[in-house]
Amino acid sequence: MTETPRQLWRDMTVFDGMQELPEPMAVITRGDRIETLCPMHEFDASLFQDAHDAGRGGVMTPGLVDCHTHLVFGGNRADEFERRLEGASYAEIAKAGGGILSTVRATREAGESELLELALPRLQALIDDGATTVEIKSGYGLNVADELKMLRVARRLGERLPVRVVTTLLGAHALPPEYQDTSDAYIDLVCDEMIPAAVAEGLADAVDVFCEKIAFSVTQCERVFQTAEAHGLPIKAHTEQLSNLGGTAMAARHGALSADHIEYLDEAGITAMADADSVAVILPGAFHTLRETQKPPIEALREAGIPIAVATDANPGSSPLFQPTLMLNLACTLFRLTPREALAGMTAHGAQALGSKEFGRLEVGALADLCVWDIQRPAELAYAVQPGRLRQRVFQGVITHER
Amino acid sequence: MTETPRQLWRDMTVFDGMQELPEPMAVITRGDRIETLCPMHEFDASLFQDAHDAGRGGVMTPGLVDCHTHLVFGGNRADEFERRLEGASYAEIAKAGGGILSTVRATREAGESELLELALPRLQALIDDGATTVEIKSGYGLNVADELKMLRVARRLGERLPVRVVTTLLGAHALPPEYQDTSDAYIDLVCDEMIPAAVAEGLADAVDVFCEKIAFSVTQCERVFQTAEAHGLPIKAHTEQLSNLGGTAMAARHGALSADHIEYLDEAGITAMADADSVAVILPGAFHTLRETQKPPIEALREAGIPIAVATDANPGSSPLFQPTLMLNLACTLFRLTPREALAGMTAHGAQALGSKEFGRLEVGALADLCVWDIQRPAELAYAVQPGRLRQRVFQGVITHER
Ligand SMILES: [Zn+2]
Ligand SMILES: [Zn+2]
Repeated sequence: MTETPRQLWRDMTVFDGMQELPEPMAVITRGDRIETLCPMHEFDASLFQDAHDAGRGGVMTPGLVDCHTHLVFGGNRADEFERRLEGASYAEIAKAGGGILSTVRATREAGESELLELALPRLQALIDDGATTVEIKSGYGLNVADELKMLRVARRLGERLPVRVVTTLLGAHALPPEYQDTSDAYIDLVCDEMIPAAVAEGLADAVDVFCEKIAFSVTQCERVFQTAEAHGLPIKAHTEQLSNLGGTAMAARHGALSADHIEYLDEAGITAMADADSVAVILPGAFHTLRETQKPPIEALREAGIPIAVATDANPGSSPLFQPTLMLNLACTLFRLTPREALAGMTAHGAQALGSKEFGRLEVGALADLCVWDIQRPAELAYAVQPGRLRQRVFQGVITHER
Repeated sequence: MTETPRQLWRDMTVFDGMQELPEPMAVITRGDRIETLCPMHEFDASLFQDAHDAGRGGVMTPGLVDCHTHLVFGGNRADEFERRLEGASYAEIAKAGGGILSTVRATREAGESELLELALPRLQALIDDGATTVEIKSGYGLNVADELKMLRVARRLGERLPVRVVTTLLGAHALPPEYQDTSDAYIDLVCDEMIPAAVAEGLADAVDVFCEKIAFSVTQCERVFQTAEAHGLPIKAHTEQLSNLGGTAMAARHGALSADHIEYLDEAGITAMADADSVAVILPGAFHTLRETQKPPIEALREAGIPIAVATDANPGSSPLFQPTLMLNLACTLFRLTPREALAGMTAHGAQALGSKEFGRLEVGALADLCVWDIQRPAELAYAVQPGRLRQRVFQGVITHER
């Protein structure tokens, strides 16, 4: 017999990552894994006498997976938010140095330690709201040194706090000022130097692009993907957020893990995603903040059987919203997801968008990342926005939060 | 010299309830009051050597005032939320016993202690997000005994937790099933029995009505107000949320403290409010949840100089959102308030909507209800949604939360 410690929860209402299980369950973890999931009426306590009694009742879900964030950045854009509401035009704000390039400037100016200190409370906010896995993208450095700096900060965040950080190199996020009229030359930099450097340091778990008129073309993004493939890195894409360029279909042809935003996704894109088994990552926080009106084609995604993930898109410009459970509510209210779909979107499907089946599910053998909530039904997580309902948070078998 | 203890904060960026002060401040409390507000460059530490050093730096605001909630209720409506998103029609949900009457049923069935236990975590969520004053309405009892039960629970909530609870009798919230075709008879009950009984027990600080086609007419609401006046109680009104009935103008003629929702408010209503010095309480959580499209006439309210308050409207149906700072963001993003207006709406103007100048402001002599936030600028509270930024919360001079 092993000495690996066991923990036991009884009478749990379980959302397993895909659905609410039909009867109260006993859940047993052993070490960092889920060992047993068993309906209470079949549960034999005598088999688990060594287990630590971790609690009884409430709703258990997988730890939340926030599969799309831009959590590392310098400065913030509260002033810009305020000026716009006070009547400044976009042109005036751009002239005053606002927009994404203000974040690029602040991020370049900040040292690694400063970026780390700035990001820690943001990540802590996600953790305190139930996140156990958080993807973090680069994309505000826009040169080799500063993109790598951002990814190093992301890795260090995962060492400082009890959370799984997955990193994504998003060098092709915006055109830096130095390359204003030579965007192909910037893509050269991304492909020839940035990706190889990130690979050499082991800093990137995936490569992402922003395929949009205000960012990079389908052709440019495809070059980035080809380079990523050559280095063995999985790919993701910001596509069809503001218009339809066909980036999603191209990304799917390259086997993208996910296409994200996709408000303007068309039938061809949906078919390509279904063929590639890509995940659709919807980002209602950006939709809310930008006051968009074009919603992602949820019904068509459903019909095509495409898994839908939900994420915060936490970033200083278009989604300064650091609260995963708020996204469950926004996904339902704004995009008409069902609570079940929204929860799957921040658990099983979020994990799939990161290429993993090790977390995001409560099933035997999965990593023991889980949350226990002081509610009666999983749907309440999407229905009510109410911080403080997280009773326990378990990361890799360790209870990191208890109330 | 008195022994009343002093507390001192230095280098604070102060939002005083109406605006951000132009330079870093020292703030001194003595007992339950604010004793001194003084620019740091004039601050003489030798005068305050007895003061407890309570901290340095960050943003200080008045404690938040949530001037419109329905926090006491039985059950919740997550199932209804879920069924609707799964495609059930309003008619099907009503047939299945959904809607406000399901909350009335659950509230009537619950005993006082049960209602108290259910409401405590909701109120705690508001407190943990910075609220120091919370108004709580009745309105799910709809008979004398159950309305009074709700108000008693509200009073007990204020005794259990460190927060000022202000109670409002909202007997005229919805027509109870027993009076389906005799709404005037129900108004008789409100006027002849409910208000006098609430007054006799000292349970109501104000009287409210829901003036809407689906609720009560202007004439019926006016009868309620006349009765409230006869008993010396101030009045408030839910008006012009779904259509324009003219309830706001009538309420203003009776000197209403506030008119709440007011999406469909017209010029006549605005003029009447300005004449009466009524506060416009906007409720972006209900607007969000109900996916309304008609916004309150913010620009016209500004031009008329009407104070605008912002509140959660926390309730199980149209605003299951228990997070005051989220409302700051929603008020800016959905209704285009400036961050300054939104913050005044949850501080000074929120207090005004409750008829008080004792709280909701940081000024000498005011009650020492205040929050210290780990941010640089007050506008960040509206810009980013990020639980966990509250560093200290002070209620009547006592630090109740410290992190
Ligand atoms: Zn993004
Ligand atoms: Zn209300």
